[in-house]
Amino acid sequence: MIEGVQSGSKTPRLRYAMVGGGQGAFIGDVHRKAIAMDGGAKLVAGCFSQDFKNTLATGEMLGLSKERLYRTYQEMIEAERKRNDGADFIIIATPNNTHFPITKLALERGFHIVCEKPLTTDSREAEKLGRLAAEKDLLFCVTYAYTGYPVVKHMRAMVAHGDLGDIRFVNAEYPQEWLASQLEKTGQKQSAWRTDPKRAGISNCVGDIGSHIENMVSYITDLKIRSLCARLDTIIEERNLDDNASIMLEYDNGAKGLYWSSQIAIGHDNGFRVRIFGTKVSLDWCQEKPDYLKISYLNKPAEIVSRGRDEFYPHAQKYSRIPPGHPEGYFEAFANLYSTFIPALAKKISGETLSEDDLDFPGVEAGIQGVKYIERCVESSKKGAVWI
Amino acid sequence: MIEGVQSGSKTPRLRYAMVGGGQGAFIGDVHRKAIAMDGGAKLVAGCFSQDFKNTLATGEMLGLSKERLYRTYQEMIEAERKRNDGADFIIIATPNNTHFPITKLALERGFHIVCEKPLTTDSREAEKLGRLAAEKDLLFCVTYAYTGYPVVKHMRAMVAHGDLGDIRFVNAEYPQEWLASQLEKTGQKQSAWRTDPKRAGISNCVGDIGSHIENMVSYITDLKIRSLCARLDTIIEERNLDDNASIMLEYDNGAKGLYWSSQIAIGHDNGFRVRIFGTKVSLDWCQEKPDYLKISYLNKPAEIVSRGRDEFYPHAQKYSRIPPGHPEGYFEAFANLYSTFIPALAKKISGETLSEDDLDFPGVEAGIQGVKYIERCVESSKKGAVWI
Amino acid sequence: MIEGVQSGSKTPRLRYAMVGGGQGAFIGDVHRKAIAMDGGAKLVAGCFSQDFKNTLATGEMLGLSKERLYRTYQEMIEAERKRNDGADFIIIATPNNTHFPITKLALERGFHIVCEKPLTTDSREAEKLGRLAAEKDLLFCVTYAYTGYPVVKHMRAMVAHGDLGDIRFVNAEYPQEWLASQLEKTGQKQSAWRTDPKRAGISNCVGDIGSHIENMVSYITDLKIRSLCARLDTIIEERNLDDNASIMLEYDNGAKGLYWSSQIAIGHDNGFRVRIFGTKVSLDWCQEKPDYLKISYLNKPAEIVSRGRDEFYPHAQKYSRIPPGHPEGYFEAFANLYSTFIPALAKKISGETLSEDDLDFPGVEAGIQGVKYIERCVESSKKGAVWI
Amino acid sequence: MIEGVQSGSKTPRLRYAMVGGGQGAFIGDVHRKAIAMDGGAKLVAGCFSQDFKNTLATGEMLGLSKERLYRTYQEMIEAERKRNDGADFIIIATPNNTHFPITKLALERGFHIVCEKPLTTDSREAEKLGRLAAEKDLLFCVTYAYTGYPVVKHMRAMVAHGDLGDIRFVNAEYPQEWLASQLEKTGQKQSAWRTDPKRAGISNCVGDIGSHIENMVSYITDLKIRSLCARLDTIIEERNLDDNASIMLEYDNGAKGLYWSSQIAIGHDNGFRVRIFGTKVSLDWCQEKPDYLKISYLNKPAEIVSRGRDEFYPHAQKYSRIPPGHPEGYFEAFANLYSTFIPALAKKISGETLSEDDLDFPGVEAGIQGVKYIERCVESSKKGAVWI
Repeated sequence: MIEGVQSGSKTPRLRYAMVGGGQGAFIGDVHRKAIAMDGGAKLVAGCFSQDFKNTLATGEMLGLSKERLYRTYQEMIEAERKRNDGADFIIIATPNNTHFPITKLALERGFHIVCEKPLTTDSREAEKLGRLAAEKDLLFCVTYAYTGYPVVKHMRAMVAHGDLGDIRFVNAEYPQEWLASQLEKTGQKQSAWRTDPKRAGISNCVGDIGSHIENMVSYITDLKIRSLCARLDTIIEERNLDDNASIMLEYDNGAKGLYWSSQIAIGHDNGFRVRIFGTKVSLDWCQEKPDYLKISYLNKPAEIVSRGRDEFYPHAQKYSRIPPGHPEGYFEAFANLYSTFIPALAKKISGETLSEDDLDFPGVEAGIQGVKYIERCVESSKKGAVWI
Repeated sequence: MIEGVQSGSKTPRLRYAMVGGGQGAFIGDVHRKAIAMDGGAKLVAGCFSQDFKNTLATGEMLGLSKERLYRTYQEMIEAERKRNDGADFIIIATPNNTHFPITKLALERGFHIVCEKPLTTDSREAEKLGRLAAEKDLLFCVTYAYTGYPVVKHMRAMVAHGDLGDIRFVNAEYPQEWLASQLEKTGQKQSAWRTDPKRAGISNCVGDIGSHIENMVSYITDLKIRSLCARLDTIIEERNLDDNASIMLEYDNGAKGLYWSSQIAIGHDNGFRVRIFGTKVSLDWCQEKPDYLKISYLNKPAEIVSRGRDEFYPHAQKYSRIPPGHPEGYFEAFANLYSTFIPALAKKISGETLSEDDLDFPGVEAGIQGVKYIERCVESSKKGAVWI
Repeated sequence: MIEGVQSGSKTPRLRYAMVGGGQGAFIGDVHRKAIAMDGGAKLVAGCFSQDFKNTLATGEMLGLSKERLYRTYQEMIEAERKRNDGADFIIIATPNNTHFPITKLALERGFHIVCEKPLTTDSREAEKLGRLAAEKDLLFCVTYAYTGYPVVKHMRAMVAHGDLGDIRFVNAEYPQEWLASQLEKTGQKQSAWRTDPKRAGISNCVGDIGSHIENMVSYITDLKIRSLCARLDTIIEERNLDDNASIMLEYDNGAKGLYWSSQIAIGHDNGFRVRIFGTKVSLDWCQEKPDYLKISYLNKPAEIVSRGRDEFYPHAQKYSRIPPGHPEGYFEAFANLYSTFIPALAKKISGETLSEDDLDFPGVEAGIQGVKYIERCVESSKKGAVWI
Repeated sequence: MIEGVQSGSKTPRLRYAMVGGGQGAFIGDVHRKAIAMDGGAKLVAGCFSQDFKNTLATGEMLGLSKERLYRTYQEMIEAERKRNDGADFIIIATPNNTHFPITKLALERGFHIVCEKPLTTDSREAEKLGRLAAEKDLLFCVTYAYTGYPVVKHMRAMVAHGDLGDIRFVNAEYPQEWLASQLEKTGQKQSAWRTDPKRAGISNCVGDIGSHIENMVSYITDLKIRSLCARLDTIIEERNLDDNASIMLEYDNGAKGLYWSSQIAIGHDNGFRVRIFGTKVSLDWCQEKPDYLKISYLNKPAEIVSRGRDEFYPHAQKYSRIPPGHPEGYFEAFANLYSTFIPALAKKISGETLSEDDLDFPGVEAGIQGVKYIERCVESSKKGAVWI
């Protein structure tokens, strides 16, 4: 039996505000539920939509007082910084192109940040945010949520402990089917902005899901990409951005990789799968069955490891909440980001020193790396899928 | 894309108190997290443990004020009923033998109830609670949480709509491995009380998990058990209650059933699986992959239905929270009990009439039926596994 | 890499004759293909059908000379025994009720036997065949073919070596869907005789597939059944024999078992699955993926063992033919019966002594036990599903 | 219930000779067993090894007369052509580099051919064989055996009937683990020649298994490759040929593809998997579970299609041998090549006209295309993984 994440903690309760996440949006509500599960912070203010009526309705639904519902993010940031009971951190859950100005202002005004990925649509902007966060000494989390699964944390620990031997090859894929038709022409909101270069940036498929592959492999293996050759396809007619991408890579240790992401792959819901092949051991994990990990050995039978049942490295073990066979899912993975970020922030505010484990959430560096990766993929593809 | 359960609601926020669920306990924390996800109610008081120190520590961790942490459940019930801001409902998450006295007193004092299963250790007591709840007109939920999965609700709707034709046979199993050794001798807390007749009642394996099978099949199919033949085995030496059970059944429509539950089944985490065979269609669902349902047809290929992707009956669809392929798990199923119970209670308090869908959570009748089922299984087994 | 069964062998080629297996029949052709794979014996004569035209057509198709195609089995047996190049063994692949007279005559005339299961429709007849085979010192194989899978042989070896510790519980099931409608009313040949008491005997579902469960569990574990309680259901209207069966058992070592077989289980092709739970290890094998075995341990991760890749006990290893990942199927399992029986028969004919491994095919004793099992199941069920 | 391939046929029995396939070799024995299953042809002569002792031992084991065991293939070809009862066709199952001279001589002397893949190590040689076979009007089969699975034939028929709509993307992979260590240094025979450029040609991984991907996708879809970008890796130190390959492709209809093959992928036995994404439907098939096909639709639940249970297109249906749930495997797929080739050859010899279905086996054109594919992959990779 396992010891898992406990509800709440002795840390003082923090306060947060949110930009985006109005009624009808998907990910904002996930943030709120994920925080609520462990209860470490409380929503106090919001600018949930460019449509103030939506903000008012969302705020009322969530039990916020009217005076802390704002017409613009600028207004919110300025007002909250002046309050004694103002937000400690701000969550930015808006379309990609708005991440930069909102985050920049929030950092300048001294707020800690949780921002959706990709961090920005331009790596120079991302780097600016990185410098600003450093200067201001503010905590920064970019919500690559899949790294919150306990099994993923165990995989990272296995690599770090040398269990795999040297890594030789990585095969990762993230197929989805949701954009297999011209969904954006039907008025469906999320598909509309994700395939619109003005709001989504230079890439849709790599920007949205390919970027999760890059982050995940980097998180598990600590390998750096030395070069890559990317082909981004726009398969659906009249679409303005890529919806399928094949990428060959080489890492700094000489290992090779192959990534595939797709949004036209009929039959795949959210089939994010990562296989890492080492000299001694290989790992196979799929996000749709996140509690299980297949560990294959060179000279003995493969194992199926079950979260909560089988022993994990201690840091990974901490993230398991319930006994094995009771599935933990996406909300719990997301909550694990916050169950790390919020206590870390509480420690920081109270002046304590943060350990590496305290900071085990995707930071601004991961965000910058993600944006650069997207840019390099688009560059390679535009040049004719060549190595760069 | 789906429309799912939304965070919070316009219903006034309710207040709840809790008996049991102190630090170190498993299920109490699940109740709190499940409620927190949708934010419909707030914990205001607790008697979390017979050890008051544990109650104090748990209450502090959860941010409760000291005056609402109580030494005994009696004290809590009396105090909370006198407060203007007293709890609206009480959650009972204690060992089985204590459910009856606590629930009885709480009902007598006018509290709505959420009680862990099995409802009591004696069916006459369970029936008393049923009568009391009816007299006092109080809402009552027994937390058979697995019925909260969206796919389960879809299965129930499929049966109700006649999609299966007539049901012919049910095969359900619930194998676990956690009691495959003499765990109770190691001091492990949960195994100690579950295998102790004084605290767990007359059955361990049927009482704990076999009872989930009975409830689930009953919920999905609405079939009533006409007769059964049960063999309860105590496989581990020196154990005082059953840890494995095989049960043959006949239902009121003439269909037959076979249930197996086990806690000594090495290799199974929490392998609750239900297969329902109809004249036209059969269903196959496993709790460890709760987002998927296999639907087999007499004369065409079997389908794999995916929550969030494929169309569910409207009532079932409402319980899906996120897009397909983002796994929903046990917490979300549990939260779905509360996301039904709490709005229903809010409606009731405000004098609104409750529809059948409003009441789609396991009520006191399900609890009574569960206790009777356990008793009949034990009776059959004691007589030599004969039909009764 | 593995060393497997080799094509052919140095043993002299044997000759066989066949009763049953005409055009349109299923299992007779499987016998012929299975023998042909390893080439140890040659078909020389046949009485393939009661319809001599079918026998002639089948014989021509198979390249037999006309003089060795016979109108009746009696004629064939008498003629073949007189020839110098007569058959060494006879395969009986006819409906159940005819096994006894054919086999009896063949044994009396000195032929070695391969007979389909169930051996007879009456256990006294089966025992007569057993005594006759012993008196005449003739080899006898009853084609419980599923025991021919290499993984099954490895399971048996694991139990024999004590790898599981003591066996505590067995759960085995064999669901099919092929009789989920009134197929026998459509003129479909096999369903007609299988559901006809005159040809199939006292049971359909237990006789056909339930009997495989009994044989398989007995083969793997060597446990003897001490008592059982069986409920045989006839679920399809106007059917004359059982099509679904639930059976609780107790073995001689005190372990318990639960078997389920069904022919009305829509969604199951041929889902024969056996789970054996020991004190240290449990095994889980499914006939539809016969190359893999799940081995679960009390205190370490479960393993997936792959035929040809992972080390088997030497005797089991011998039955693997090709590298891992190249699926071996039903024909190969069937061929493994013959790749054991035929060399054993060649040795016997040449006067060599046969080892236990030489005789690793289901013999007449397995056949007798199978018939008794069917009789006891029917008896228990007729008495109201009581223990006997 | 299905009608499948029947044992034997009315066609006159043909005779074959074999080069390669001596004791200790893997694939030669598979050829012999595959032919034996359906009984359409008989082995009459062999030059099984360069080591004549091995040829003699193999021939004796297989019951051949000594006069038809030959020291060299030249001797065999010359001798067999002069006999009245000489071989009708010759099987070449030797290392890659010897295919050309043997096949060339055999064609010149008028023998029909079955040759292992890759056809040759040089595409000009392959084309010569193609021209020679055409001139001499001889049948030619290259044993890309995986196309023999009934499900694969159904996939091809689905594409041909337009069930998928337009094909947009193909993702195919073939990971194995058998060369994940320096196996060739241990004296293991097959690894030694496969990684030796002198015997295997210019590629190991693409030549052996990548070539199966090319053939399979081409067979199912009829798409032609317009351009490709291949990176062949030699991951194991001191190995002389590639053991891992990533290939991006574009087809003549504008669709894109991504292939991955590997022999260092610990955890994969023989994981050949093909996913084909169309505008309406996508297909997902894995060689390790060859009896099942996942068919995903844009707007309805995915189906799992089961060989023998669910209706296939008629031509595909013919290749199914036994009822569903009785696994068919690699031998049966291989046998299906011969159950097509042999009757076709019998027809040809008797002067009948051959239909397209009669010729549904991989011919010399498939072999030529395979060699060219290997060459193009190596060329692209050598130039730095560029598009060609």
